[in-house]
Amino acid sequence: MEETRNKQIIFKDFISGIPKETDMELKEGKIKLEVPRGSGAILVKNLFLSCDPYMRGRMREYYESYIPPFVPGSAIEGFGVSKVVASDNPNFEVGDLISGITGWEEYSLIQRTQQLRKIQQVDMPLSYHVGLLGMPGFTAYAGFYEVCSPKKGEYVFVSAASGAVGQLVGQLAKLYGCYVVGSAGTKQKVDLLKNKLGFDEAFNYKEESNLDAALKRYFPQGIDIYFDNVGGPMLDAALLNMRIHGRIAICGMISQQSLSEPEGIHNLYMLITKRITMKGLLQSDYLHLFPNFLELVISYYKQGKIVYIEDMNEGLESAPAALVGLFSGKNVGKGVIRVANE
Amino acid sequence: MEETRNKQIIFKDFISGIPKETDMELKEGKIKLEVPRGSGAILVKNLFLSCDPYMRGRMREYYESYIPPFVPGSAIEGFGVSKVVASDNPNFEVGDLISGITGWEEYSLIQRTQQLRKIQQVDMPLSYHVGLLGMPGFTAYAGFYEVCSPKKGEYVFVSAASGAVGQLVGQLAKLYGCYVVGSAGTKQKVDLLKNKLGFDEAFNYKEESNLDAALKRYFPQGIDIYFDNVGGPMLDAALLNMRIHGRIAICGMISQQSLSEPEGIHNLYMLITKRITMKGLLQSDYLHLFPNFLELVISYYKQGKIVYIEDMNEGLESAPAALVGLFSGKNVGKGVIRVANE
Repeated sequence: MEETRNKQIIFKDFISGIPKETDMELKEGKIKLEVPRGSGAILVKNLFLSCDPYMRGRMREYYESYIPPFVPGSAIEGFGVSKVVASDNPNFEVGDLISGITGWEEYSLIQRTQQLRKIQQVDMPLSYHVGLLGMPGFTAYAGFYEVCSPKKGEYVFVSAASGAVGQLVGQLAKLYGCYVVGSAGTKQKVDLLKNKLGFDEAFNYKEESNLDAALKRYFPQGIDIYFDNVGGPMLDAALLNMRIHGRIAICGMISQQSLSEPEGIHNLYMLITKRITMKGLLQSDYLHLFPNFLELVISYYKQGKIVYIEDMNEGLESAPAALVGLFSGKNVGKGVIRVANE
Repeated sequence: MEETRNKQIIFKDFISGIPKETDMELKEGKIKLEVPRGSGAILVKNLFLSCDPYMRGRMREYYESYIPPFVPGSAIEGFGVSKVVASDNPNFEVGDLISGITGWEEYSLIQRTQQLRKIQQVDMPLSYHVGLLGMPGFTAYAGFYEVCSPKKGEYVFVSAASGAVGQLVGQLAKLYGCYVVGSAGTKQKVDLLKNKLGFDEAFNYKEESNLDAALKRYFPQGIDIYFDNVGGPMLDAALLNMRIHGRIAICGMISQQSLSEPEGIHNLYMLITKRITMKGLLQSDYLHLFPNFLELVISYYKQGKIVYIEDMNEGLESAPAALVGLFSGKNVGKGVIRVANE
């Protein structure tokens, strides 16, 4: 059988500090579009790849996390939307569209097929299966409903609010009847939050010399729910502004991902005086709720009640810059790479 | 009516840093043992006074806490066990024994009588009503059962484990079927934990150069429940050793009480990777459970299943040193001052 070109984004080696484009390299290999018999594997053509902050964690040599590190010299792994082009597995047919963990390359041989989902909703944008309908969207859903225990009328603060997770948290909170304020790092993002995503208020944290004062301005009555996507000084400032029995969902801590010595959080005594619950969140603990999530979010989307902003990057070549850009907030919305059009 | 001598411990002025004996002064005043008619107040003779770490918070000029600061120039306030000597309130008769907030003085006029409890259990040591059967004991009960959501067989770590709260947490956890390790700051306390309070293991944190390594030694399989009475570096080390879905009850943070700039906690990203719940605790949120608490703890005590260690200080004159001693760990067990023998 003939071999087909297979461009790949290779993870060069473990890093410390902020990821750089040069930590990855584009390599052009070849692949046979077939699957070894008896392997149970499938061969897919990758259509969309996902850039997510958690991927920074896989760039360090640390084996005790919930997910192992990348393999130096091999293609980066991540969530993607792919099309089956060959199958040795009775559950997958050629032509099936799937989402799940795949490689940063044009074609991937996937052995661990049990982690894949078949895409049934062909009337939704395909790329949404790594965003609104994928891991980030489900993180927002599980985090808001299951971790934050919201009540109608409560005051909700979301950081990194225009990001893959934050933008859905804010919209779900608004639909739930909460008052919602978001923070982001550019004027463009703040405008999107207020004018497109329906947040009640939004502010640019980079223009605030005192985050505590900024939060007091937007929440004179205090914060019931803080959905924390960043950690660091924003978390410390939010702790000072929580209301009694407030809840903090800890998700991502993107400001700390690249630090070898994470910054200290100084205001945890507020947990006592305000009896705050703070809980870390991984969506994988809530997978039994995934069908409910899809049903709700697709219904909201089709009714025009929610929107989803993607930062679409064209071509596998754009992937390293797209991933690196997450850590300086270059992306506007969910970071996605379009590798191929079916 | 004749006046009676009334020695008082006066709070001199707001402080920063660690409390010193000279922040208080003994004053000898006089008081008439009667209650103004129509006031609804009672006059009590104080028998036992309680030394509790939270009292440090009342020594700073900060009005937004759950409890207001002490009044400079007036007697210190705190939990106590007292006997009614005059009453203008139909709910209290002369001779009644009560527990609740009173003054650091021989006799107190109490206006806010709704916060008082009448003592019914005359077959328990009276001083226990500020310890085992009072706020610290109830904190242990509510914190362990309601905040820590224990399961049989789980691994439990308690810091400041021989203190007023910790010693009961550890014993309740043992009775629940957990494996329990405690930390304390002297060899004497470690011996008490192992030989009198029934902890499985205990260690002197002051002899450990690396708290993370110490916890790994005592919990090679990790910690399910950390009952945190200290905050600071021990909390940071415990975060590194929590198991998946672990729970941390935040109670007291005594190591941070006297710092104007609390130390930073650096390992909060573990909340995400281990999906930890961390919750601050004030016993006053759980008062509906107080009768259940009394019933359980009195029953355990009468069956000889729990003990309670008090650090008894004789005479009102000893009160400033006893309170100050809490912050260097001088007390062995619950700090109490005996003011009078009925």
